[in-house]
Formats: sequence, structure tokens, C-alpha cells
Amino acid sequence: MKIKVKNCQPGHFYAVGVGPGAPDLITLRAAALIESADTVIVPRSELAEESLALLTIRDLIGDQEVIEHIYPMKRDSAQTRACWAEVAAEVAARAAAGLAVVQVTIGDPMIYSTSAYLIESLAELLPPQHIHVVPGISAFQASAALLGEPLTLQEDRMTMMPATDMEEVARALESCETLVLYKVGPRLRQLGALLEQRQLLDRARLACYVEQNGREAIFRDFREALADNSHGYMSTVIVRVGRRSWEQPPQVVEVA
Amino acid sequence: MKIKVKNCQPGHFYAVGVGPGAPDLITLRAAALIESADTVIVPRSELAEESLALLTIRDLIGDQEVIEHIYPMKRDSAQTRACWAEVAAEVAARAAAGLAVVQVTIGDPMIYSTSAYLIESLAELLPPQHIHVVPGISAFQASAALLGEPLTLQEDRMTMMPATDMEEVARALESCETLVLYKVGPRLRQLGALLEQRQLLDRARLACYVEQNGREAIFRDFREALADNSHGYMSTVIVRVGRRSWEQPPQVVEVA
Repeated sequence: MKIKVKNCQPGHFYAVGVGPGAPDLITLRAAALIESADTVIVPRSELAEESLALLTIRDLIGDQEVIEHIYPMKRDSAQTRACWAEVAAEVAARAAAGLAVVQVTIGDPMIYSTSAYLIESLAELLPPQHIHVVPGISAFQASAALLGEPLTLQEDRMTMMPATDMEEVARALESCETLVLYKVGPRLRQLGALLEQRQLLDRARLACYVEQNGREAIFRDFREALADNSHGYMSTVIVRVGRRSWEQPPQVVEVA
Repeated sequence: MKIKVKNCQPGHFYAVGVGPGAPDLITLRAAALIESADTVIVPRSELAEESLALLTIRDLIGDQEVIEHIYPMKRDSAQTRACWAEVAAEVAARAAAGLAVVQVTIGDPMIYSTSAYLIESLAELLPPQHIHVVPGISAFQASAALLGEPLTLQEDRMTMMPATDMEEVARALESCETLVLYKVGPRLRQLGALLEQRQLLDRARLACYVEQNGREAIFRDFREALADNSHGYMSTVIVRVGRRSWEQPPQVVEVA
């Protein structure tokens, strides 16, 4: 392949998105940075047996130092920030010694990612021009690609949010053409009831573990997803509420 | 590199996202499919002198047939669909002859992309298991990465929409923590006035031609963007309206 890629610069830090899990959904830029790093930081949630990010990049690991950082899965901002501040100190020490450090993250580092906490802490320890972010394919994109259904066209609005609070989800359904919901896990039945009430069950899809080495499950029929209910933590719900065409932007038209 | 990639299958069609413009932001999957295709369809708007998608993939082109398809830049759904139906017929003829066809698209094929029209037409001409979509990095992701500012954290909602109608933009600002606006072009001053009125000017960023071979312009200070006003068609505005933390999901807290 003739495309030019750049290696890491000494003393620099890179937050690198590696996509949803399939190694070939890594970008060329991300792959070159991971391969040329001195240290690779791999986040793993305390609930996971192995790091999905590490599985995704394992073919890119040679003699780099790999630091697996176990982070808490609690809804506690202070604890989360404190845990990543420790990692930031390790990164800064290596950067000061002229080493290049990459933190890999599943999906995209700017979309619901632990990278945000690490970057926030590093901002006090490294010059801004030494901190880089490389985007990655997010789960909602991989899900839409597998479903083969467009997320947005023409004048459509798309909203993405965690499915924590069904009242907020109900409100969001009123003000977008496509709603992407993450972390629906234990609230799948509640969501099903809401969608049924709004007559949107036929327009909802559930995608679980997309691009994760054969574990993926796609439900084009949301009723089947509700009946199955064996969906996992890494699930994306996409509801195609309606469409706003160029010709009639303010009017929501029916999806065929 | 040891990561395994798959070549095109004969008689199949692939809508492939190639990211915002930098060749190294192509995924390994996309690169392998483009390199192994018999025919590559490259969309070019009638207003563009050259195809940005073709510039992005030129190092992957050898002896593939390249079809540059010029599409109208009119807000006319019927004309747009008719134009892509012609391409679909060409794709179907090649697929029937056992050739593999890739359509490349800037960004992601499921996000405001011409791929949606081609896939819609092809659905009547090819079996569904012969139609594939490969996600790509969208401009909002590349913009956020370059700015180094997270789009979403914890309970945040993100809305993405074209900045066509300022009343709709005003409404969207009320119901999300991050607003991503595409196609702001000629309405930049109108948007500036709205953001000033809402005291959100300090939280807005403008990114133009991101990852497009040195053409990029980043405005962290929206007032400078308004003063400059030389932004182009390919611009992304990101407004970080507020944050919803785990601890207080319903409450929008101030961004530091």
C-alpha cells in the first residue's frame, strides 16, 4: 500500500480510537501510531475479563510496553477522574523521558470514552501540542453499516444519548429523525413499552457486540429483541423516527 | 502489519466510507476493498473541480476501472434519486458479470451521504447479502479530535443536524449538551447572533476542511470565525452547550 503514515513523535501522547472491535476497522493512522509507540495504555473495565481494546490491537503489539489500566465501572465522577489522574502521571513521566505513549480506546476517543478523563488530566502536565487525538469508528456507525440503513439524509436531525432515563428518551423522540441509544441494557423492556406506545416499534433496531469477532447479534425486529432479552452491555438501539426532506424541512414524513 | 483484511467478493457491492480526506484516516477494511475492487465509483458534486473522495484514495488506485459520477447539488429529492438510479443500473450490470464494485464516499456512508440513494436503488437489483457498507470517520469526529474536546461524556446528549433553519437550531440548543451543525456556510452570521443571544459564543467552535491536506482552518474563538467569514462549504460547528453528569443527570451543569 502506498499511503504514507506517520510514526509517533518522542515525548508525545496520542489518544487513539480503534473502532468497535474488528481489527480491520482500525484506521491506517491509528495502526501506525500503535505500532511505533513505546508504551500502549489499554483500558479495561473492572467488570471485563479481558480488554476488548487489547484484543482489537493484539496483532499490532510487538515489543511496546503494554499497561493495562483497570478502571471502575461506577457512576462516580470524582473516583473516575482520580483513577485517570494516576495514569496521567505515568504518561507524563514517560513523555518527559522522551517516550511516545498511546492510549487506545474502543470506538472514538471523543464519544463517551475514558480518553476524555486522561486528556483532561494530561492538559496540566504536557504542552498542548504534545497531545493528539485520533478518531475511531463508533459503535453506532458500525451498527448502521451492518443494518444498511442510513442514519441521516437531507435535513434529518440525529440525537445520540444513553438510555438512562425513559422520560428523557421520550422527549428526544419528539425532536429528532433518528435516535441512537447507548447503554440500554437493563432498560430494554421499558424502552420497548415506550416505543410501542409511540407506535415506533417497527422503526427500532437493536445491535449488540457489533464487529466483535462473531459475538454480534442484530435484531431488525425489535419485538424479537424484547422476546430474546439476552442482549449485552455493548448494545446500540437505533430508532428511525421519521425523515425531514429538502422539500419540506419542518415536516416529519413517514419512513417507507 | 499482521492484521488480516478481506478482499472484495465477485458480484458484490460495497459502499465504503473513506473518512474526512486524509488518506491515513481510511480504515484497513476500506483500503483492502478499494484495492481489490474491479470498479470504483467516485462521486463528485457538480460544483467541485475535483473529487475529494478520489484525492483521498488515489494511492489505492491501480488498474481498477474508475467511474467518476457527477451528481447535482440541488435540494431536489426526485432528481437526486433519478441520478443515482442510473449508477445503480451500472453497478448491477457489473455485479451480474461477476465484478466487484466499490462506491467510495467522504465521511461515513450512513451520515448525510450519497451512498444512501445508491443503496436504496440497488436494493431492487441485488440480493441483500451482496450489498455491504463500511463505516468511515465523519467530519464531526475529525473536528472534535483536532480540537481535543470531548463531544460526549457520562449522560450527555449530542444532536447533529444541518444548520438550515435557525429556529430549529435554537430549539436543538435547548435539548442537548453538544450540538453539531453541518452546512452552516452562508448562515454563519445568523448562527453567531443566535449563539450570542444565548450566551454560547464562548462554547462554540468552527472547523473547516478538517484533515484535507493543509486546507484546514480551526476557530476555537467563534468571534474570530465571524470576523474572518472566509469559511467554506465543508465546515462543522460544535457547540458544547453544557454537561449532564452521572450524579445529576437531569441538570445541565456549566462547562469549565
